[in-house]
Amino acid sequence: MRLADSFRSERFGAVRIHELQRVIELDSGALPDTGASGQSSGSRVVSANAIRAIESEMVVVVPCMNETRSVIEGVLSGIPHDCLIVLVSNSDRRPVDRFEIEVQTVEQFCRLTGRPAITVHQKDPGVAAAFKAAGLPELIGDDGLVRNGKGEAMLIGMALAALSGRSYVGYVDADNYVPGAVHEYCKAYAAGLHLAGSPYSMVRISWHSKPKLRDGRLFFSRRGRSSEVTNAFLNRAVAEYSGFGTEVIATGNAGEHALSLELGLRLRLAGGFAVEPYEYIDLFEQFGGVLESAHPDVVASSVPVLQIETRNPHFHDNKGDEHVQGMRMQALNVLYHSPVTLPAVRAAILEFMVAQGALEPGQEPPRERVYPPVGSLAFDLLYDALDAEATSFRRIGWAPAAPVPARWPGLGSAIPVSPAPAREPVAAAD
Amino acid sequence: MRLADSFRSERFGAVRIHELQRVIELDSGALPDTGASGQSSGSRVVSANAIRAIESEMVVVVPCMNETRSVIEGVLSGIPHDCLIVLVSNSDRRPVDRFEIEVQTVEQFCRLTGRPAITVHQKDPGVAAAFKAAGLPELIGDDGLVRNGKGEAMLIGMALAALSGRSYVGYVDADNYVPGAVHEYCKAYAAGLHLAGSPYSMVRISWHSKPKLRDGRLFFSRRGRSSEVTNAFLNRAVAEYSGFGTEVIATGNAGEHALSLELGLRLRLAGGFAVEPYEYIDLFEQFGGVLESAHPDVVASSVPVLQIETRNPHFHDNKGDEHVQGMRMQALNVLYHSPVTLPAVRAAILEFMVAQGALEPGQEPPRERVYPPVGSLAFDLLYDALDAEATSFRRIGWAPAAPVPARWPGLGSAIPVSPAPAREPVAAAD
Repeated sequence: MRLADSFRSERFGAVRIHELQRVIELDSGALPDTGASGQSSGSRVVSANAIRAIESEMVVVVPCMNETRSVIEGVLSGIPHDCLIVLVSNSDRRPVDRFEIEVQTVEQFCRLTGRPAITVHQKDPGVAAAFKAAGLPELIGDDGLVRNGKGEAMLIGMALAALSGRSYVGYVDADNYVPGAVHEYCKAYAAGLHLAGSPYSMVRISWHSKPKLRDGRLFFSRRGRSSEVTNAFLNRAVAEYSGFGTEVIATGNAGEHALSLELGLRLRLAGGFAVEPYEYIDLFEQFGGVLESAHPDVVASSVPVLQIETRNPHFHDNKGDEHVQGMRMQALNVLYHSPVTLPAVRAAILEFMVAQGALEPGQEPPRERVYPPVGSLAFDLLYDALDAEATSFRRIGWAPAAPVPARWPGLGSAIPVSPAPAREPVAAAD
Repeated sequence: MRLADSFRSERFGAVRIHELQRVIELDSGALPDTGASGQSSGSRVVSANAIRAIESEMVVVVPCMNETRSVIEGVLSGIPHDCLIVLVSNSDRRPVDRFEIEVQTVEQFCRLTGRPAITVHQKDPGVAAAFKAAGLPELIGDDGLVRNGKGEAMLIGMALAALSGRSYVGYVDADNYVPGAVHEYCKAYAAGLHLAGSPYSMVRISWHSKPKLRDGRLFFSRRGRSSEVTNAFLNRAVAEYSGFGTEVIATGNAGEHALSLELGLRLRLAGGFAVEPYEYIDLFEQFGGVLESAHPDVVASSVPVLQIETRNPHFHDNKGDEHVQGMRMQALNVLYHSPVTLPAVRAAILEFMVAQGALEPGQEPPRERVYPPVGSLAFDLLYDALDAEATSFRRIGWAPAAPVPARWPGLGSAIPVSPAPAREPVAAAD
């Protein structure tokens, strides 16, 4: 894969956010494995071998909710062979058990391709029991099951990725009509993680365009409405520290992203649709140098965030306006309540939300749920409980290579077993 | 790439048409280069190395007519690096010179990626002069320029592919919104040509689905209307010989296809939209064992036609109903007039065309233009004239490796220098 060079970046403590880089070639040919671009100035090649080395260490988590069999099959066909597939479903189980259909689809695909996969259902009581046993009772709702929400599905996926013993996790939504786009996302993850050159790295995708129906014809929209708002406020939050306006963040709502587990297991994931923008915010909170960090080793290193603009259109089902409005407000809620967000930005968020009719004057934005780091889990207990109690935990040609250790190697004791993240109550901006 | 096995095929003389094979995985990982599927029954892996070996011998011809810069850029980004790009344009040159914009797009892409390309404009007087000089005056219309038409653009592309000294040519339409689909087409060409295992091979693509607007929402149509009719009559033409009904042909109108130049240079290409279905018909005429062949060596060998169903949707601009009707009728015209088409099939074509209102009762379908094989050209004269006279013939980082020989090596004297294909006048069916 050939990417445009990223010439500029913005620093927030140890976090280095790289300017958006375009994909120039999906396949850059049989070039020597130097990682360099040779004489072609302005671009950078990541060789097929370097990409494959990352893929064989990558888990691809597919959060799935009521997609059709053929769409799921297409998504699976686009995930490179060497990646381990983890399907986390929150699909209806009655009147038709859609999860069982999904599992059959995954099983059939794995049989044809001779590759492993793991599936799990978000509302399986055994899954709730396992996360409770492993030290994350916060994930469980009043009904005793794992809460609904995309962030929650991603958290489950990250925990299973950690169980697998691999080093990277990437996310690909199941509602994607273009297998080639899925394929490009995965290649871009691998290329970006290779280029990042840090054990604590993240790659976020900005899709090239999104086909939308407008007046009976197709229009290729460059940016989603939700993304524009989220990115503008995230950039403002950064600029408030540096004193320089910036547009560096282009992937605040990126559903498609990947990260090293060394980083991911330290992050606190937010619930629902707040999960994606909150990743930026938690990077700032934990590694931004503003608040005290539980990970001085990471702060002393570097946390690169690469942003890659893929070539394929992001072509999925239209979830409607409600979905967009919800995503936008959840992003602003988490930004508003972050201790790193300075008063001027908080005031601007309030003003915007009131103007949008999302908030009465004088009200505060609601708080979103934020979970302790997945790295705080006791993975041995998690695995044993899933194995014993979670009937939806299907291991298709996969088993842990060795007894699952309690702790992710390398995290050390930095992450306590059951930490409620210490968060100061945030006063409303004046 | 992993393809489903093709278990069945249909023979027509030396032509062996393989049943449609699905793409199962876009990327099948770092498997040993055996070409075999190992224990995964029902599928077959073509290794990245095997694919790359074909790509480095492949020319990808992009016929282009008035597409936007960003669409062309997307298509280029999907063509694997090792393929040589040939853009054959019939775009407007005034009021805006769209061809110059296209050339700039190709040049910029090639500069960024360090790869070569060739461009040419179909209506360049120098191109007409070159084909005339090289022995193909049939290509020139009354205005002294190369005729309009997709078949004519493909013929030019094949001639340039032959000049390049490479062994394969593939076609990818420029009006494709999904770079990942272009990428998959090229990978499928290479995988199929590798699997075909014959110097005379062809790979034709059937896209998985085609998104269409219907009642303000998207509908993923499996087959085009034009394709259904073309395929049905081509299958009937085959079945009339074998005595067994068949549905083996699924790619009669395939715009996306690739073939070895050993085969392509022997084929007679038809003009306009007849070009794609006529490839099947000419295979039957030249290698079907019904008529005497100018290539007994090929007939003694085997001419495999692989048909591959890709995973990506074929997502392009809607050209409207007129386009579809035109394509369908041109396919039937060539089939009707072929000396290999038996009377019962001819009668059925007449009946269908009359019922469709495309023909008055008692009329005959019009004849489509059919050109002599590209292999009959004097390539040295072609190159010299293009070099001297065709201002649109831009060589971007490309030059012939050696003086261009007059004849394609290996074709021998089987193809006369200026053959008008000998075609018996065909009597109308009763």
